[in-house]
Amino acid sequence: MSSFLRVATIEEARAALEKRWRPRPREVEVPLDEAAGRVLAEDVVSSIDVPPFDRAAFDGYAVRAADTFGAGEESPIELIQVGNVRAGEWLKIKIGRRQCAKIDTGAPVPRGANAVVMLEHSTARAKVVRVFRAVAPGENIAKRGSEIKCGTKVLKAGKMINPQTLGTIAAIGRKYFKIYSPPKVAVVSSGVELVAAGSQLKRGKIYDVNGPAICQAVELCGGEASYLGIARDEPRSLATLLKRGLTTCDVVVLSGGSSAGAGDIAPSVVNGLGNPGVLVHGLALRPGKPTFVAVVQGKPIFGLPGYPVSALMVFYQLVAPYLRRLGGLPQAERARVRAQLASKILSARGRRELVPVKLVQKRQKFYAEPLLKGSGAITSLSLADGYIDVPLEREIVEEGEAVEVILFGGGRVG
Amino acid sequence: MSSFLRVATIEEARAALEKRWRPRPREVEVPLDEAAGRVLAEDVVSSIDVPPFDRAAFDGYAVRAADTFGAGEESPIELIQVGNVRAGEWLKIKIGRRQCAKIDTGAPVPRGANAVVMLEHSTARAKVVRVFRAVAPGENIAKRGSEIKCGTKVLKAGKMINPQTLGTIAAIGRKYFKIYSPPKVAVVSSGVELVAAGSQLKRGKIYDVNGPAICQAVELCGGEASYLGIARDEPRSLATLLKRGLTTCDVVVLSGGSSAGAGDIAPSVVNGLGNPGVLVHGLALRPGKPTFVAVVQGKPIFGLPGYPVSALMVFYQLVAPYLRRLGGLPQAERARVRAQLASKILSARGRRELVPVKLVQKRQKFYAEPLLKGSGAITSLSLADGYIDVPLEREIVEEGEAVEVILFGGGRVG
Repeated sequence: MSSFLRVATIEEARAALEKRWRPRPREVEVPLDEAAGRVLAEDVVSSIDVPPFDRAAFDGYAVRAADTFGAGEESPIELIQVGNVRAGEWLKIKIGRRQCAKIDTGAPVPRGANAVVMLEHSTARAKVVRVFRAVAPGENIAKRGSEIKCGTKVLKAGKMINPQTLGTIAAIGRKYFKIYSPPKVAVVSSGVELVAAGSQLKRGKIYDVNGPAICQAVELCGGEASYLGIARDEPRSLATLLKRGLTTCDVVVLSGGSSAGAGDIAPSVVNGLGNPGVLVHGLALRPGKPTFVAVVQGKPIFGLPGYPVSALMVFYQLVAPYLRRLGGLPQAERARVRAQLASKILSARGRRELVPVKLVQKRQKFYAEPLLKGSGAITSLSLADGYIDVPLEREIVEEGEAVEVILFGGGRVG
Repeated sequence: MSSFLRVATIEEARAALEKRWRPRPREVEVPLDEAAGRVLAEDVVSSIDVPPFDRAAFDGYAVRAADTFGAGEESPIELIQVGNVRAGEWLKIKIGRRQCAKIDTGAPVPRGANAVVMLEHSTARAKVVRVFRAVAPGENIAKRGSEIKCGTKVLKAGKMINPQTLGTIAAIGRKYFKIYSPPKVAVVSSGVELVAAGSQLKRGKIYDVNGPAICQAVELCGGEASYLGIARDEPRSLATLLKRGLTTCDVVVLSGGSSAGAGDIAPSVVNGLGNPGVLVHGLALRPGKPTFVAVVQGKPIFGLPGYPVSALMVFYQLVAPYLRRLGGLPQAERARVRAQLASKILSARGRRELVPVKLVQKRQKFYAEPLLKGSGAITSLSLADGYIDVPLEREIVEEGEAVEVILFGGGRVG
């Protein structure tokens, strides 16, 4: 209990953690179809020219440009068609003087030719093609390497892979490349009173809320959640799950088992698993006080409160930024909305408070209604569009005051 | 080719499509751990009270409140401890007058008791407990049903499932519930010159860009992409893949095979598959003109241009909103940024033009640099942070003009 006497701010907790643990993204090579939404861990250099050959930009006739000079609507010139180049084919023909070849969009321009006359500027009868407009050398041709030159760096490490970047990687034919690996996160719920959704609820038991909620929150930060299940608040059961988490994952997120009462066994179990153990126990944050942060076997263990609202709010504040860093993802700044506070908030001096609110829009203006049902009330959080961050030194935020609401993702506004 | 003479606006294409096809979300029942990020297709009503019993909010002693009246720092009252209630247990004791039971946070308050004295307001020696502060009836107890009453609608259909909503569903113990099913989308690339990334590039061939890029774009709209591969621009091969798509998926997205030249076989193949067939062929949009929209067997086929930039831009404009509707997802309004145009854009009257731009920030101000490398240049799109929408009637947007940039997701700004 004594470690509870000195609560830490989130910033102090971070500093203490980072002294003992450096979050380092891990690189992994994956095929194209598994990279969506991840972050490039290497500079991608093209080993081919794109396009890899001079390509017709339109359907028409591949010609020697000089042969068309002087052609006009009233004075067409005539060429002899010596071939027909389809897309995907490679014809070994050479276009000589006064010759041409029919060509498809995307087909390779045959040797000798240096321009394409568009179909609509020509007529053909048997092998005789009439051209009604002159073309300049290079006209209607996408030159070899005009989009990407072999040896060019096409994408830089750190780039998020969206359909556009994925397309660029596909264009140069790379199938495998390095991304930052999604961090593996073990999720453990602690509480002898907890049972999993779908089970029968015996007397004295409640359903585990944190397990599923934190697993999704992990995935939203680019992590891979591995739900290890419910530990009874009992040293052996908890130690077994935590050890499994440390062995199989990069980060362990525990919820429950760390309030300052009879059931406060998690911190001591963690200390028994290895050094340095618990670094911070207790946050100057509401909800979120019964939080601990530990490092064991070089991996962090985040001990979140058992109350669902507290657990999620601490997860978003403290854990999420590390998971993003581990995954090489940029920090997602949550969107913010200015609103007018709909009813007074009382806070405690010396404690930062995060107050979930619902946004209501009335005549172009947003009002923030605090949802104060206690830290256990996950339903109130499911109605919340975001939260207000009341700093340490504020005791009262008055009704009508202008506040900034930090929005949850997927939040409905209005 | 004749169908190309009359190009349609995006709005006209949508109207034509929706006359023959109504996008209807499909419901499916899934377990809790598969619902993240989807949308609820049913109102969720709780069949239990949450909490399901009167729960201690703190570690302490369960008491009859009246027994503590008058207690104070200087005048403690004494109670006899008759039990110890741990979380998760259900003790068949009854607290009588002047009696109490030790109780854990979250444990069920035993019969007879109606308040909890916090541990820090008491001392204990053997079975004698001294209470230093009076408690009111109900104090420090989370009453049965105080968070959710049995029979209450806790979530409405249409709600997006984020960790908070998932937690609420977990709290009432529901393991299975209805969500809108992710639409299944067949993705087909057409082009005899195309080969898949990772294969050897023979002469005259290029790598397929659209397959992987469109698959990710489908997933970003909440769809389930099924890549059926590359159809040679040849009726039999194309018909086979399209039929497979119509049989196994809700929507078919084809790219390529629909330009107005020799290789323009896709629309006629589609018309051969069933009625009504092709509804629109040609969009008044750049990039994106060689697009067609068809309905066959009651399912839509979107024929996107073969050029990657065109294919993606048309996908975002035309296909993405339907996939979101089919998945029951809200339409994602893309974020917009005001910027100053860095160099002049020339557009054609009578054609809406979408110009990819890169945003550059200089002294608090954003400048939009058009990336004009032609519709084939996927690399230019991978550098783009968003695009400018130049309407039908504009021919020139001048350098320095204020423009609105519609941002791609995951775009780096600055």
